[in-house]
Amino acid sequence: MNLILLFPDDFVDDSSRVQLQGRRLRHVLAVHRASINDELCVGLSGNRVGTGRVTILNETVLEMEVCLNRMPPPALPVTLVLALPRPKVLRRVLRSVSNMGVKRIILLNSFRVEKSFWQSPFIGEARLNEQLILGLEQACDTILPEVMLRPLFKPFVEDELPTLIHGTLPLVAHPTASASCPRNVGHPVTLAVGPEGGFIPYEIELLVSRGFSVVQLGDRILSVETAVPALLSRLF
Amino acid sequence: MNLILLFPDDFVDDSSRVQLQGRRLRHVLAVHRASINDELCVGLSGNRVGTGRVTILNETVLEMEVCLNRMPPPALPVTLVLALPRPKVLRRVLRSVSNMGVKRIILLNSFRVEKSFWQSPFIGEARLNEQLILGLEQACDTILPEVMLRPLFKPFVEDELPTLIHGTLPLVAHPTASASCPRNVGHPVTLAVGPEGGFIPYEIELLVSRGFSVVQLGDRILSVETAVPALLSRLF
Repeated sequence: MNLILLFPDDFVDDSSRVQLQGRRLRHVLAVHRASINDELCVGLSGNRVGTGRVTILNETVLEMEVCLNRMPPPALPVTLVLALPRPKVLRRVLRSVSNMGVKRIILLNSFRVEKSFWQSPFIGEARLNEQLILGLEQACDTILPEVMLRPLFKPFVEDELPTLIHGTLPLVAHPTASASCPRNVGHPVTLAVGPEGGFIPYEIELLVSRGFSVVQLGDRILSVETAVPALLSRLF
Repeated sequence: MNLILLFPDDFVDDSSRVQLQGRRLRHVLAVHRASINDELCVGLSGNRVGTGRVTILNETVLEMEVCLNRMPPPALPVTLVLALPRPKVLRRVLRSVSNMGVKRIILLNSFRVEKSFWQSPFIGEARLNEQLILGLEQACDTILPEVMLRPLFKPFVEDELPTLIHGTLPLVAHPTASASCPRNVGHPVTLAVGPEGGFIPYEIELLVSRGFSVVQLGDRILSVETAVPALLSRLF
């Protein structure tokens, strides 16, 4: 937690004072080991970053006087279209892409996505946000990514994707592609990443028919949680 | 498991027949759902890759007739010097770097590495290899990375590192660096990555005095498990 993410409800009245309990209090006690008058890095969700000066700290409450005076780090100009991974992997990928600055994530169905993944409690908004917030806190960012669930592949690709990819370079990562993933593109990207086992040929063909280029990262088949940061780092 | 990694002990007599039980048998039953005469991708540890034709498959044994005729994918020309992360993160990083083709990993102490991490059962050779093998199986690779434990920072940097970095580009990733991590270097690299919280100034200075350049990946502080694949992907 390099930044303590604040929400409007944390503020006392309309002041610049916040009161925190729970996870954030415990973290400041156990990891920061802060004292009165220490200045901690804070940020207001969807807003600026700054410092919080500790005014009260005990086992039940952390109170800080907050000054927000800096912009959060810039976002990556990318929309990530990700075949829904298994819940454990999803949580790590969400933390990781939130950490790297992705702001729009579409979790998509695909032939090789197990149906049970769509019933997982981890795709509820609150559980998704937990992971996204961990990524923001790591990156000193405040802008919560937007996550959209699309449990039907074909209608999404045919009806929504053409608008989404407008003005972007649409790429689909696929281990058997002949083209290498481009480097440092300097342009917004829509990046599609398949499930473990990959998109099936029909899905690749449908994406290609909508303008996607098929690219790879080398001879190795990477797991989704390794491939996604590797792709983002190469593209930007 | 895109490849079933075989070991000399798996072979029956001096034949080209292997018999597998345990994790690999269960995976072939549950995930591959293979049948007699199916050909599965296999590789011999430290050796070639090829196919295994299923000759017997039941609840207790998988027998295959193996033909090894291809080289595993090329390795990344990098030595990773990693401040020992907490066990849970270590396991994921090892899977990930083994997946990407790193073949030499040095787990190093640093001021911000918790002493208890050096007592973890996960840094025993068998437990480390479990994770490395998962990475190889994902990548269709057979060459097990070498892992060295170095629980003393200063003697390692002063006495061993000068020889290790010979002929390589020595880089240390540090979020507050002024230089960007270079892209696609086309040259062997020694890459040092600090603990959560980073190397302390003394450690950075010692590395710099030995020829390391300090580089970063942007404005965001990345978690170790996100930073490592991102750095490798950018460098190679």
